[in-house]
Amino acid sequence: MVVQRQIHLGAVPYGTGGPGSHTLWLDPEIPVDASVDIDWYAGVAALAERGKFDLLFIVDSQFITPYSPPHYLNRLEPLTLLSALAGRTERIGLVGTATTSFNSPFNLVRRFGSLDLISRGRAGWNVVTTGDAGTAGNYGLDDHYDYDTRYGRAQEYVELARALWDSYEDDAFVRDRETGVFLDRAKQHVLDHEGQYFKVRGPLNLVRSAQGHPVVFQAGDSDQGRDLGASVGEGIFTHAPDIPAGQAFYDDIKGRARDRFGRNPDHLVIMPGIKVVVGDTDEEAREIEAFNNDRDHTFAAALAEFGRPFGWHDFTQYDLDAPFPAETLELGRRSFYTQAKAITDRAVDNGWTLRQTVEATRYFRKSEFVGSATTVADKLVEWWEARACDGFNIGVDHPSNFQRVVDEVIPILQERGVYRADYDATTLRGHLGLPVPVNRHTAARAGAGVPV
Amino acid sequence: MVVQRQIHLGAVPYGTGGPGSHTLWLDPEIPVDASVDIDWYAGVAALAERGKFDLLFIVDSQFITPYSPPHYLNRLEPLTLLSALAGRTERIGLVGTATTSFNSPFNLVRRFGSLDLISRGRAGWNVVTTGDAGTAGNYGLDDHYDYDTRYGRAQEYVELARALWDSYEDDAFVRDRETGVFLDRAKQHVLDHEGQYFKVRGPLNLVRSAQGHPVVFQAGDSDQGRDLGASVGEGIFTHAPDIPAGQAFYDDIKGRARDRFGRNPDHLVIMPGIKVVVGDTDEEAREIEAFNNDRDHTFAAALAEFGRPFGWHDFTQYDLDAPFPAETLELGRRSFYTQAKAITDRAVDNGWTLRQTVEATRYFRKSEFVGSATTVADKLVEWWEARACDGFNIGVDHPSNFQRVVDEVIPILQERGVYRADYDATTLRGHLGLPVPVNRHTAARAGAGVPV
Ligand SMILES: Cc1cc2nc3c(=O)[nH]c(=O)nc-3n(C[C@H](O)[C@H](O)[C@H](O)COP(=O)(O)O)c2cc1C
Ligand SMILES: Cc1cc2nc3c(=O)[nH]c(=O)nc-3n(C[C@H](O)[C@H](O)[C@H](O)COP(=O)(O)O)c2cc1C
Repeated sequence: MVVQRQIHLGAVPYGTGGPGSHTLWLDPEIPVDASVDIDWYAGVAALAERGKFDLLFIVDSQFITPYSPPHYLNRLEPLTLLSALAGRTERIGLVGTATTSFNSPFNLVRRFGSLDLISRGRAGWNVVTTGDAGTAGNYGLDDHYDYDTRYGRAQEYVELARALWDSYEDDAFVRDRETGVFLDRAKQHVLDHEGQYFKVRGPLNLVRSAQGHPVVFQAGDSDQGRDLGASVGEGIFTHAPDIPAGQAFYDDIKGRARDRFGRNPDHLVIMPGIKVVVGDTDEEAREIEAFNNDRDHTFAAALAEFGRPFGWHDFTQYDLDAPFPAETLELGRRSFYTQAKAITDRAVDNGWTLRQTVEATRYFRKSEFVGSATTVADKLVEWWEARACDGFNIGVDHPSNFQRVVDEVIPILQERGVYRADYDATTLRGHLGLPVPVNRHTAARAGAGVPV
Repeated sequence: MVVQRQIHLGAVPYGTGGPGSHTLWLDPEIPVDASVDIDWYAGVAALAERGKFDLLFIVDSQFITPYSPPHYLNRLEPLTLLSALAGRTERIGLVGTATTSFNSPFNLVRRFGSLDLISRGRAGWNVVTTGDAGTAGNYGLDDHYDYDTRYGRAQEYVELARALWDSYEDDAFVRDRETGVFLDRAKQHVLDHEGQYFKVRGPLNLVRSAQGHPVVFQAGDSDQGRDLGASVGEGIFTHAPDIPAGQAFYDDIKGRARDRFGRNPDHLVIMPGIKVVVGDTDEEAREIEAFNNDRDHTFAAALAEFGRPFGWHDFTQYDLDAPFPAETLELGRRSFYTQAKAITDRAVDNGWTLRQTVEATRYFRKSEFVGSATTVADKLVEWWEARACDGFNIGVDHPSNFQRVVDEVIPILQERGVYRADYDATTLRGHLGLPVPVNRHTAARAGAGVPV
């Protein structure tokens, strides 16, 4: 059976603010405490489910100062949040961001395994190494790990996670009331992992879910980050400014997956985060975007968030009209270094001032996905057909705008046959067209000629 | 206002088995995969809420072998489970067990803070140091910490947790759309904790819930464990075989709280775990108990669980009719040592064989709370009036039995005026009569004469 390629959609709820919308909370549509209001999230989830979205995508950050933008200051922990939403949703995938830098593997793997069972096979894990270096201070370290350590840990961590999720073969639990046999003891497996970074004995005290393992997403753009995504990722969360950049990223990741890691590139879905604005006409949509930009994303707010890749460096101390202070790049060494370097390189190459640099890199200020529902649908299809991506993670900023995506854009995609009319699967893997991983012990048994 | 003393009740869902009911899953009333079935837990929660229980209490264990009893083999992680239940319940408190031995404080504190917000002030944390020494192997250690380290960590951990939960004063978030001010920056507080075991900078990126902090329970019975409970606990989970033993424990803990730690002993509720069996008559109840014991708690099962305090030592290797092998006590040094020592001392003092020792210590086999609804209610009131406890954590073993507790015993307690007719509070602190802790920074400001 050849499965028709489909557009995959994720919804990224921002709460009181997000990239490009620091002051989203000024919108009277949004509760001022949205980022800690479970009912607000449940409302977004219900809307996304009405739109047959593949997944909800929850980002994360654990480092704040008094100067952090509103949505950083106060936000629910992703897995707690998603577990609560599991019971208030039916079909949508639940993807939570969690870092391999500051969580013990056994704990985290267990929590994702639990979420996967609670949601009956809808869990996903967005693997990050933590961009905000200051987070290290909350975990007893004076500084964040260097990149080799960050990505070395991440790689070992994900492999370890999958091994732990395979602790039980799918038919391990006999549960025969007649014979009183609960477990087939040969089908529980100790791990005894001893790697470069972790030592974990196992087994995990959890059976696998309907989808085998939670789906593994990855976000991180350095060469090491891309190798991590290409080797172990099943989804990639990224940002792409335009189709050519999207295509280059797409080809690079899928090429690495195929050529370096011998994987089927179709088993890796690439979903950039985008901003969508829907209006009655293209012109009205552009006006809405401009209005939102003016209210939600002042230059002062942009300047504050600009410091993030540089370890939340305070750039207000510099002359805005002097050349970009390129020496600040070093401050980003253990934060979002790839992003900090790209910004610095552009600024230096173009001879920009700080002000020009901030203006040129204002996150999400200008989006391609702004227009009438038809225009937006056209754009989504155009990117997707051009293989700039396999789908999109759509930011849920202004609720009424997201409602228009669901009620106006989605039906057009459905009509064109590029997006599901209704859910035809119950698991996140099902939605994304990803295979259920065979339990490694069952596979080994089969490989060895022992009847499975 | 003098608040009438009330009986407090917790429900402890066992899933496929629990203490004294290893083979609970043989009961056709219980789904064979109950311990990973969120709908089964939601059903128990709904029943407990119908009975106006103060709280659900989820115990935990993370160490298994192929020989572990069924309910250990496969169980949901407590906080994931409780977050899912938060959205499926209205009023009942949600208490999860989590260890201070194998969780980074910032992560765990954040998760409980999130659960507290998601449940709108119904979260509780049962602080344990992990009884099953083998757990250490899942966290990179060759052996569990010694007792001084375990309890030293626990003490520092809870103090640290409370400080992190106070990162924001309650009026820190201004969120004024007119002025655009979101945060009163002076009311966000860095912690900069550097203790013997932990170094955590903070602040936590979460506002406090309606109850200020999650309620802190404690379980652990050594001298160090009792000091921990008496100094920082607001609830104690314990076991008591009879009224005199309960009274001795009660007096000891409340005395320590008052005399050693200068606390109000009423701000610490003591709730032993008990087994209840309700029948139409006392005789019928005893018959049900005997039937259940025979089916659910065979000697072989008892012998298997008997090894738990001794680090899950395998006692099947000894001659059942030879004197109790007292040298095994040493194996429990880093597990449930207090319990292992009590068992060993009794065996040696009485000159028991292994068989006699196992028989004499069969967990929950014989309960005082077995009889008609009136008999059970009488017993509960008798214990509570004698101040052997402030309430009970009732094991939810056989569902129809628990239903009888709710439908038959509870109304009698209500009639006698010792138990709430309906919830009169929305938070767990409200149910338990515990004060909302004042934010330490707000208090300091007030103390310094600065207007609050
Ligand atoms: C699109 C994208 C989304 C990310 N989301 C998060 C996040 O939610 N939380 C987090 O701690 N780090 C996040 N990261 C950070 C990465 O895990 C990584 O630490 C950071 O990007 C630096 O690595 P790099 O140079 O490989 O990109 C994200 C990175 C990217 C590119
Ligand atoms: C009534 C009771 C319940 C307990 N529940 C748990 C539990 O659910 N999970 C856990 O890891 N440890 C649990 N413990 C273990 C304690 O935290 C502690 O590690 C153990 O009892 C040994 O300490 P002690 O000698 O002070 O009792 C429990 C202990 C008691 C007494």
